[in-house]
Amino acid sequence: MAARAQLKPAARVAGRRQDVWSIVNEAAAASPKQPIVNMGQGFFGYNPPEFIINAAKAALDQVDCNQYSPTRGRPRLKKAIADSYSPLWGRKLDPETEVTITTGANEGMLSAFMGFIEEGDEVIIFEPFFDQYISNIEMPGGKIVYVPLHPPPNGDKQGTSAADWTIDFAELEAAITSKTKMIVINTPHNPIGKVFSKDELLKIGELCVKNSIIILSDEVYDRLYYVPFTRMATLSPEIERLTLTVGSAGKNFYATGWRVGWLIGPPHLIQYVAAAHTRICYSSVSPLQEAAAIGFEQADQENFWEGAKKEMKGKMDQFNTIWKELDLPFSDPDGGYFVLVNMAKVKVPADYPFPNQVKDRPRDFKLCWFLIQEVGVAAIPPTEFYTDQNAHIGEDWLRFAVCKEDEVLDRAKERLRDLKKYIES
Amino acid sequence: MAARAQLKPAARVAGRRQDVWSIVNEAAAASPKQPIVNMGQGFFGYNPPEFIINAAKAALDQVDCNQYSPTRGRPRLKKAIADSYSPLWGRKLDPETEVTITTGANEGMLSAFMGFIEEGDEVIIFEPFFDQYISNIEMPGGKIVYVPLHPPPNGDKQGTSAADWTIDFAELEAAITSKTKMIVINTPHNPIGKVFSKDELLKIGELCVKNSIIILSDEVYDRLYYVPFTRMATLSPEIERLTLTVGSAGKNFYATGWRVGWLIGPPHLIQYVAAAHTRICYSSVSPLQEAAAIGFEQADQENFWEGAKKEMKGKMDQFNTIWKELDLPFSDPDGGYFVLVNMAKVKVPADYPFPNQVKDRPRDFKLCWFLIQEVGVAAIPPTEFYTDQNAHIGEDWLRFAVCKEDEVLDRAKERLRDLKKYIES
Ligand SMILES: Cc1ncc(COP(=O)(O)O)c(C=O)c1O
Ligand SMILES: Cc1ncc(COP(=O)(O)O)c(C=O)c1O
Repeated sequence: MAARAQLKPAARVAGRRQDVWSIVNEAAAASPKQPIVNMGQGFFGYNPPEFIINAAKAALDQVDCNQYSPTRGRPRLKKAIADSYSPLWGRKLDPETEVTITTGANEGMLSAFMGFIEEGDEVIIFEPFFDQYISNIEMPGGKIVYVPLHPPPNGDKQGTSAADWTIDFAELEAAITSKTKMIVINTPHNPIGKVFSKDELLKIGELCVKNSIIILSDEVYDRLYYVPFTRMATLSPEIERLTLTVGSAGKNFYATGWRVGWLIGPPHLIQYVAAAHTRICYSSVSPLQEAAAIGFEQADQENFWEGAKKEMKGKMDQFNTIWKELDLPFSDPDGGYFVLVNMAKVKVPADYPFPNQVKDRPRDFKLCWFLIQEVGVAAIPPTEFYTDQNAHIGEDWLRFAVCKEDEVLDRAKERLRDLKKYIES
Repeated sequence: MAARAQLKPAARVAGRRQDVWSIVNEAAAASPKQPIVNMGQGFFGYNPPEFIINAAKAALDQVDCNQYSPTRGRPRLKKAIADSYSPLWGRKLDPETEVTITTGANEGMLSAFMGFIEEGDEVIIFEPFFDQYISNIEMPGGKIVYVPLHPPPNGDKQGTSAADWTIDFAELEAAITSKTKMIVINTPHNPIGKVFSKDELLKIGELCVKNSIIILSDEVYDRLYYVPFTRMATLSPEIERLTLTVGSAGKNFYATGWRVGWLIGPPHLIQYVAAAHTRICYSSVSPLQEAAAIGFEQADQENFWEGAKKEMKGKMDQFNTIWKELDLPFSDPDGGYFVLVNMAKVKVPADYPFPNQVKDRPRDFKLCWFLIQEVGVAAIPPTEFYTDQNAHIGEDWLRFAVCKEDEVLDRAKERLRDLKKYIES
């Protein structure tokens, strides 16, 4: 028995509930409606634009593009990012000291937490949250302090806007203690699609300046906004001094499988993110860094950013007509590619058979399972992005990703019409 | 001041000595012999074979190959690895439970430590060690216990073999405590080039079985051996039950910048490595996983493994003729692409000007700097891979990487002839 104990895993990886992705996959496999229309995970249903694919292929022919890159990233990519973001920052960014490349935004954020968080330090995040924050903060021993975003009060009865999800600043201020080391902002927000207003960001930023809190601003959807978009780092020099901005080539260039991300921030913060990254992944994938560099270099001449935004907003609006048809209220996103739909009116038969991994989860997990079985469309239950205590806030909503081909969106709408018979009018 | 304290980095990334790679880069930049012939870092001076490059390009045209892969890796790659290694294991490996894909071997090993090490657990590693082990073990709070490999007693006077670097098994046994959770083996070994004998591995393995110690067998150079090669996991079912074997597409396919690695092991260990990997990188780079899969699928029909081994051994032997010319003894490697050369006979002028970052380091750092300045060839000082206490063992050696084009090796030899005037005969 002593021998067995020796092989036991570390607490950080042992026994969690089944994660949402594998529940959705199992539901999809069990469904009679094959193939499922998958609007769950936020991967793209189409390829990066041709000029970027061609750049990746050309990189594969260069010897240095197939070998280790410098740990902080390829100089060409750091420069391309600095050049692309300098106008948005309103000043010239230094590619050598203010940019560091990571293995996707995810490992970039882990590097930031590993760079600054020690056992017992506190990190504030808003609920709902992107689920990877949790393990990323817990891995270096951080304690998470949750502050809810309050949903629009009539979100179950009428169409609302992502902007109607609000911060109670008294709650935020009360969450700050002497141990608060970092706060995570996510704008445009997953899953809500909220673009934080300048005013909201200023209030958060000022609290951080007052309390010397490092701001991790997760802006991976930064090229997809449908209202004016403000970047935390640009609000004031005092705020910028505290701000690490996270980006993702996967999200920007429709290539979530490329695992290229970056952080932009002041040298006194970036250097420790880079040091942590070196200890985690050593360096990041070389040929796709090169391709991302070329993506940034040529994006403007290809009118790529404008086109991407227009295209995604078009998909969003096209898809969301189905909710008006079904008379289900949704929270209209101001950015990103996710839409939250309120399903309070959908009546699931009382005796509907749910498997064990779903039976004891909040109502949105049941709605998710039900939709996959009965209409063959997969969405994500947002209470996965809440603590148990606040799960009730999200339990009537489902999250749909619209970064799919138009014909897939049409097929999804066709199938969702089958929901009608379960909707109370 | 309180405010400043808040921004301080975590201890795990704060203030270390300057690392060897940046010292070598600075030395190269400061040298009058431009361009430097770089035989320092172990990246390849040539491209992966064409059939693998073509596979990567073809993957870039497939939508699913550019999006997130499953966290444990693409099914095609897991299967290709299981198929390729099953004959070497002498039984059929299960791709779904016994293989997991990581972001290079480096993040794979970090995932193994994150999966099993908690604060205060001990991990035994041999000296000299691959430097990334240190931060990878320390990050989850592990304590490292060092056991030296003893160099050949006459290594400064005559040519020796990598096999002559030996384990004192009494020392190894004495290093085991009730807190020993893991041991790291590296065969073929970096930097020594030692291929551990079956007898050595058996003795280590039996100690691990007796004490229930998890064995992390770093076999990234597993296709480059010039004497019979034994894999730890194949020695007995009891040993296999404890063994995680690490591999690297970067090393196997001449593509260190691709960041694709894997671990093979029993399901009760692999599941926690996979869980840790999910929390670190989420998933690994998709198109290059696909290319690696095709690499494994086609390697035999392309006679790639045999060719790779023959080619590298040819480079090794071709390059090492220079040491015979110069009458400098080297430790002839039995695997991998590194050679250790003993430079005790090289006399560095007493008043030679060394910069600060080198002045207080062991003699091999000075030899490294001197070689770069005076002959224009970069090598790695191996005391970087030792604790201070045992650095004396490595201070007369330098490590050269021969995974370079033949003409580069010829240029290196040409330049190294300039060393003659500094060598005592
Ligand atoms: C808010 C948010 N941040 C970060 C990420 C991770 O980005 P990457 O794929 O570059 O790791 C995601 C991916 O879904 C996300 O939604
Ligand atoms: C012994 C050893 N293990 C692991 C690695 C890392 O391999 P990868 O590039 O796949 O992370 C190296 C790279 O030099 C190595 O020498």
